[in-house]
Amino acid sequence: MKLWGGRFLKEESSEAAAFTHSFGFDIRLARQDVLGSLAHARMLARQGILTQGEGAQLESALTQILGEVELGEAPFDPASEDIHSAVEMLLRERLGDVAGKLHTARSRNDQVVTDLRLWLKEQVAEVDRLLLGFQAVLAVRAEEHQDTILPGFTHLQHAQPVPLAHHLLAYFWMLERDRGRLADCLRRMDLCPLGSGALAGTGFPIDRHFTAEELGFSGPTLNSLDTIADRDFVVEFLGFAALLMAHLSRLAQEITLWAAPEFGFVELDDAYATGSSIMPQKKNPDVAELVRGKSGRVYGHLLGLLAVLKGLPLAYNSDLQEDKEGLFDTVDTLTGALTAFTGMIATARFRADAMERAAALGYSNATDVADFIAWQGVPFRQAHEITGRLVVACVDSGRRLEEMGTEELRAFWDGFPDGYRVPDARASAAARSSFGGTSPERVREQLSAAAALLPPDTLTDARARVNG
Amino acid sequence: MKLWGGRFLKEESSEAAAFTHSFGFDIRLARQDVLGSLAHARMLARQGILTQGEGAQLESALTQILGEVELGEAPFDPASEDIHSAVEMLLRERLGDVAGKLHTARSRNDQVVTDLRLWLKEQVAEVDRLLLGFQAVLAVRAEEHQDTILPGFTHLQHAQPVPLAHHLLAYFWMLERDRGRLADCLRRMDLCPLGSGALAGTGFPIDRHFTAEELGFSGPTLNSLDTIADRDFVVEFLGFAALLMAHLSRLAQEITLWAAPEFGFVELDDAYATGSSIMPQKKNPDVAELVRGKSGRVYGHLLGLLAVLKGLPLAYNSDLQEDKEGLFDTVDTLTGALTAFTGMIATARFRADAMERAAALGYSNATDVADFIAWQGVPFRQAHEITGRLVVACVDSGRRLEEMGTEELRAFWDGFPDGYRVPDARASAAARSSFGGTSPERVREQLSAAAALLPPDTLTDARARVNG
Amino acid sequence: MKLWGGRFLKEESSEAAAFTHSFGFDIRLARQDVLGSLAHARMLARQGILTQGEGAQLESALTQILGEVELGEAPFDPASEDIHSAVEMLLRERLGDVAGKLHTARSRNDQVVTDLRLWLKEQVAEVDRLLLGFQAVLAVRAEEHQDTILPGFTHLQHAQPVPLAHHLLAYFWMLERDRGRLADCLRRMDLCPLGSGALAGTGFPIDRHFTAEELGFSGPTLNSLDTIADRDFVVEFLGFAALLMAHLSRLAQEITLWAAPEFGFVELDDAYATGSSIMPQKKNPDVAELVRGKSGRVYGHLLGLLAVLKGLPLAYNSDLQEDKEGLFDTVDTLTGALTAFTGMIATARFRADAMERAAALGYSNATDVADFIAWQGVPFRQAHEITGRLVVACVDSGRRLEEMGTEELRAFWDGFPDGYRVPDARASAAARSSFGGTSPERVREQLSAAAALLPPDTLTDARARVNG
Amino acid sequence: MKLWGGRFLKEESSEAAAFTHSFGFDIRLARQDVLGSLAHARMLARQGILTQGEGAQLESALTQILGEVELGEAPFDPASEDIHSAVEMLLRERLGDVAGKLHTARSRNDQVVTDLRLWLKEQVAEVDRLLLGFQAVLAVRAEEHQDTILPGFTHLQHAQPVPLAHHLLAYFWMLERDRGRLADCLRRMDLCPLGSGALAGTGFPIDRHFTAEELGFSGPTLNSLDTIADRDFVVEFLGFAALLMAHLSRLAQEITLWAAPEFGFVELDDAYATGSSIMPQKKNPDVAELVRGKSGRVYGHLLGLLAVLKGLPLAYNSDLQEDKEGLFDTVDTLTGALTAFTGMIATARFRADAMERAAALGYSNATDVADFIAWQGVPFRQAHEITGRLVVACVDSGRRLEEMGTEELRAFWDGFPDGYRVPDARASAAARSSFGGTSPERVREQLSAAAALLPPDTLTDARARVNG
Repeated sequence: MKLWGGRFLKEESSEAAAFTHSFGFDIRLARQDVLGSLAHARMLARQGILTQGEGAQLESALTQILGEVELGEAPFDPASEDIHSAVEMLLRERLGDVAGKLHTARSRNDQVVTDLRLWLKEQVAEVDRLLLGFQAVLAVRAEEHQDTILPGFTHLQHAQPVPLAHHLLAYFWMLERDRGRLADCLRRMDLCPLGSGALAGTGFPIDRHFTAEELGFSGPTLNSLDTIADRDFVVEFLGFAALLMAHLSRLAQEITLWAAPEFGFVELDDAYATGSSIMPQKKNPDVAELVRGKSGRVYGHLLGLLAVLKGLPLAYNSDLQEDKEGLFDTVDTLTGALTAFTGMIATARFRADAMERAAALGYSNATDVADFIAWQGVPFRQAHEITGRLVVACVDSGRRLEEMGTEELRAFWDGFPDGYRVPDARASAAARSSFGGTSPERVREQLSAAAALLPPDTLTDARARVNG
Repeated sequence: MKLWGGRFLKEESSEAAAFTHSFGFDIRLARQDVLGSLAHARMLARQGILTQGEGAQLESALTQILGEVELGEAPFDPASEDIHSAVEMLLRERLGDVAGKLHTARSRNDQVVTDLRLWLKEQVAEVDRLLLGFQAVLAVRAEEHQDTILPGFTHLQHAQPVPLAHHLLAYFWMLERDRGRLADCLRRMDLCPLGSGALAGTGFPIDRHFTAEELGFSGPTLNSLDTIADRDFVVEFLGFAALLMAHLSRLAQEITLWAAPEFGFVELDDAYATGSSIMPQKKNPDVAELVRGKSGRVYGHLLGLLAVLKGLPLAYNSDLQEDKEGLFDTVDTLTGALTAFTGMIATARFRADAMERAAALGYSNATDVADFIAWQGVPFRQAHEITGRLVVACVDSGRRLEEMGTEELRAFWDGFPDGYRVPDARASAAARSSFGGTSPERVREQLSAAAALLPPDTLTDARARVNG
Repeated sequence: MKLWGGRFLKEESSEAAAFTHSFGFDIRLARQDVLGSLAHARMLARQGILTQGEGAQLESALTQILGEVELGEAPFDPASEDIHSAVEMLLRERLGDVAGKLHTARSRNDQVVTDLRLWLKEQVAEVDRLLLGFQAVLAVRAEEHQDTILPGFTHLQHAQPVPLAHHLLAYFWMLERDRGRLADCLRRMDLCPLGSGALAGTGFPIDRHFTAEELGFSGPTLNSLDTIADRDFVVEFLGFAALLMAHLSRLAQEITLWAAPEFGFVELDDAYATGSSIMPQKKNPDVAELVRGKSGRVYGHLLGLLAVLKGLPLAYNSDLQEDKEGLFDTVDTLTGALTAFTGMIATARFRADAMERAAALGYSNATDVADFIAWQGVPFRQAHEITGRLVVACVDSGRRLEEMGTEELRAFWDGFPDGYRVPDARASAAARSSFGGTSPERVREQLSAAAALLPPDTLTDARARVNG
Repeated sequence: MKLWGGRFLKEESSEAAAFTHSFGFDIRLARQDVLGSLAHARMLARQGILTQGEGAQLESALTQILGEVELGEAPFDPASEDIHSAVEMLLRERLGDVAGKLHTARSRNDQVVTDLRLWLKEQVAEVDRLLLGFQAVLAVRAEEHQDTILPGFTHLQHAQPVPLAHHLLAYFWMLERDRGRLADCLRRMDLCPLGSGALAGTGFPIDRHFTAEELGFSGPTLNSLDTIADRDFVVEFLGFAALLMAHLSRLAQEITLWAAPEFGFVELDDAYATGSSIMPQKKNPDVAELVRGKSGRVYGHLLGLLAVLKGLPLAYNSDLQEDKEGLFDTVDTLTGALTAFTGMIATARFRADAMERAAALGYSNATDVADFIAWQGVPFRQAHEITGRLVVACVDSGRRLEEMGTEELRAFWDGFPDGYRVPDARASAAARSSFGGTSPERVREQLSAAAALLPPDTLTDARARVNG
């Protein structure tokens, strides 16, 4: 049954129906759709647009449907055009003609975008919870590895040694920015479209502030045309999601590198790795690879919706029906990725020994030499040149900088004082005490700042997870 | 049950399993997976790697599973890791240990990409059939509308009048290029990966030419590493699909414009339009809008897979598991869009009267005046200038160019011969007889060329569809 | 000359140099680079890392270069690797060895991202100014057109009549959300990277709070690794830009529609339209089309940078050099588009007559009938059905709803009271007085809210621009 | 000066001009524009549309301009709207009014797309030449490294040993598919638009076959509307480019991995690496990183143009002006990347010792054990299980599989024959002789097939480059 038969002399073709119906996916909004209808029905009765009796009938039937939806037992007709039709049809079966009064002063255009905002607000809360949980695990692992030194990389070459804590906290702060973007997105999303009608509001004396409040929004939207045409909140969420996935893909990349035998910096728990159907020795960092790969689909969803919006005239066009599937998949991808990553990082064994062995190689303390020379008043540019020649000599003779005696060093620059030794990796990291740097006290400062952002329960859970 | 337990001391976590299992979507490859296994089993027996008896057992059990798959009745375990595991498990239930011999000289890495190529080859054939069917409908509608003149647009302004046939055929030729790209894509896809193993082939004396032929491929692939890492055929198909959707989105845009009351160039059949839940007068070109909108998701899938491939080292990485869902959705989108569009265009009523009324407005025959003047030896640049002034005068006085008498015209250029009248829209279109132009004989040439590309049955079906 | 020769035995190949040098585009950051160096030099001297004399020498020479940069006269070597090298080389020419001291406690890695943040902060201010200016023009045009009624569209079909003011304000609010996103983006961007070194801070006793303050940042960043690897601020800006371009592309689409002869709702000023080299009558809405088209490049830049970041390990990789050109082009595109659009909208002639003629067609007051019936207690669903049949009858007889007499109406529903007439478009729009709706007082409320957001000067300028 | 002044009463605003003019970038098409005009002028004279004298004048002046363009000395007015206007203006300065005759039977709409096809055809030839050159270098390096064994990776874990030749040839075949796509793209691009006019052809008796042949096209296009609206050839080229960049990004990723000290599989020549401004020891694989990063911009250009085309009505819209900059940048990126990569790979030192040391680790010969067991009649699934347990035991005791004596092996499966030893990496690779596999004869087959595709000169040059 259609909600719009009157003007049409012919049935929709089955091909067109198969192509245009959205019930197959917008059923995911069933709960929100019923909640929206409940608020609308209450408001209509409160404003005298429906009688109290009609309002009570609708409220009672909708409450029943809500319960069925929550149990996954609502007997919707699978041939429905969309979830809005499905709910109204069910209501009609149960209430008869009074069901037809619910759509007074409402259109599917304001209804669908109200549903979607309600749904996404809930998902934002869940994603934020998962983000916090992942941050907490990172903080706990960082706390544990303040003294573990690994080579910091630039260009995937050894650059300067850093504590593993500092490295893990880098991701903590990325995620903190992600949470900031999510909160900003939520703030803009938190206005209620209901009552904007098809595109132009309504002449019925509705109370949009009431329905907004009933549904937990901070208020109603301001311009009916804009409201119906607007999917900014979805694009903004997808933009947040794309950047979050970029961050996770970077960590994922590092995990696959660190798990490679050449690095050996991490051993994943068997519970977070998979094997090969043919090669018996394989242990694959599947979760990390998938997260890295799934960044692609989220990028695609963002781009896809931007393409949909391009050049679309006001107000509603059916193109906007394309706002949902990519969003649903994005939310599922984020929750799956955050959940799996949290477990993977909580259970991973970081190999401090391998990291420290690596940190001793690759001349990552060369900058310390140049800095020392510069500190004695030599222009840094010359100090850099001197140290470059020293490194070439060490490469040729297969020695580390810290193995060079003072006399040997003086062959490159005669200002080295007696007894000068190049600091090793740990000492090098410890010396870099500039704000945001790698020295123990700086890392401790970061850990405190991180902990201050985490709810105590979340931190406790993370500790339990990591340690057991 | 896993195919790779030996090396692992712990079960995969349920979170990781939920995140990494692909059975939920790769079950769509079940038929191809079983076909591939059948060919592999035959080859193993033929080469003496399995005994004839083992081969016969496997072939018989696989044939049974194939039948069940085709009926949608294969009792796969929904908790399977992927379709390959699901089939092997079923086989084991039925055959016991001999099932474990099927995976000799094979890996899921070559198996999955064989399945995917087989599946996509079938889909390519279907998409091509739908493309031809749509082209045929365009050709039939063009044939019917050789004498219908509408304003040709540039910048959405009236430019020069064109026959509707010419306009519809423009889309015919776009789709013909799409078919060319699809055929090229198919050619490169038509090589069999089976036997490439995990990444490096196998030491078993397999016969890759045999399995390739059994499965209908033109031959085996050339380099095992490349084969396992390669998803070019998916990217190329998605590239084809994105451009096809761009073409359809352009036609979709024109249909929405033409169906707007301001244009009124087309009336869609009720069977291919939808109504509004609130506005009783609405008749919406829903199919066209959705096709336009769905270009976004196909663009997104293309982009998503390109992002997946970026920077991926050889050979297999789990990121490649992301090759399927976007592809499946793209194929579904194309088949849905082509089917719905074919019906929509076949049944649409083009309003020749409204088109011709519009063609008479907007001075779209101004170029004819400039051409006429230039033909008399005046530099075109001056002829253009003269005609521009003439148009401004007509705009000011609210007259059409063909309403101007010779004397009036001579006020702008005194070379107009006695009795000269500006040609009207129909005459203007008829006069442009350059190759590829709008004159009746040129359009007839195009129609013949188009018909020559269509199988007679397809054309007959299209005629029946349009006329009944 | 290179900044890193010591370790290398061979010159960079000319091919590699051509491919890797960034001076061709990062010269755009020259001013910011010198400002960053000035702050750094002051800090080094203040902290005793350089002597007061060295600091003074550097400050004086840098100030001179700054002046030259601002005049476009800095004699940089065009063969420089990047702007940082170019500045240091110039300094060396002028100061000799002391120039080599400037790079103490600094790396190009923290330098480049400081430059880029400084530059983008300035651009954000400019884009915001242009946004406000465009909003002001929209508000002024809306104020002017409170009584102009056009058909509101959904699905590009007439839906319900709306005031032009309401339609223009829809864009005002979209842009207001854009401004909100821009402000949020700026807030996160406003931290100073300088002092993060190559990736791990430095052992020199630098004062990052001092340099942050000198450069106008709200403070220093928190984690050196994250800081060097982070391009979130660019992605977030590009995300803002993509959505803004989507908004502008929607308005652009409407302008091209409205300028088409079939609509005739707007006539663009000659100063914001272009002609054809061959068709003398053409007047093309070139600016609108280009803005619509340019959404594509901004989408591409966003997507391009996300692809760059995907799977990039910490901290710096040369891939990040790709952050600039797309950003520069995006800023140029935004400023060009906003400037041209502001002028185009300020000078456009909206054709109230054509809009109102159109509003009378297409049965866009049908919802008023259904609402009226529903208001009498008939379920809306039945009222919709009744009105649908009424519309079909009017279409068949070529009449408008408001032309129907009471008796005629009663043939469809006998509850119409004596003297009932269907309201015309203006009355229909005036009646929809729900919050955010189209009635005069609601639109006035919106205008007040809009004006309250605009600086008085901006509004005055807009009025001047529109009126003269 | 404008080509379209007549109808306009006012100058274009400077803001609109700055935004809409394309001369700043389409000057890159100057040579092609003049060549197109030459062919057009010849045709006009040949067909009697211009006199022989007029034709000769135009030809002579255009030939002169062509020479100037080729020397970079054509005195175009930088304030020109586009290159077409610039050329016509120059012609007018030199010839007076006869210059105005050149635009007879032509529009900028067919002119620009003719220019662009001509330009791109030339670039396609150049890109193909660079691709062949790079393939040749890969083949030569492969030839050299038939006996170098490295661990083949899946999931970045050691999977099975492969010859470096096999690995390098994997890229050879990817590029060969790229060349196939490029050739297909060229074939579809190779039709001449000239004579399609503004959108609808012309009434002048032009000869499109003549101009097509003059310009080296295989023939004229078929439908004028389609021709003017069509940018398929650009999208298809960008699709080719995106996939090529994906391939290069994968090789780039492997180079950065292999150059990391943990791998040490490759040492880049100093001429293809860069250093750090602060860390004296650094040697960065800058070229590889940039190629990897630049995949992003090419993806963005593809996506950007698809977004431009979405929903664009026929025939020309100014949005199409956006087809050029992204294409130009893509061609520059490809030529730069291929050139730099060819040099980088030609000069790289592959460290056979490090590769072989790595190949001995990670149990990449475990599949050989499982295969051996299966070959004795044990179901592969059991053989896999047995070998898995064996690997765990070896991991625990820190031994390699080939170090296990027969008795030790029999503790896991008693069927191992006397004297059985697990093959080492080299033997393992040599044994996999399936078609497309890793055995020496298979790799030699591939090398022959590769050499057969390369022009002898190209191969000779590559050998010279690699060896000198």
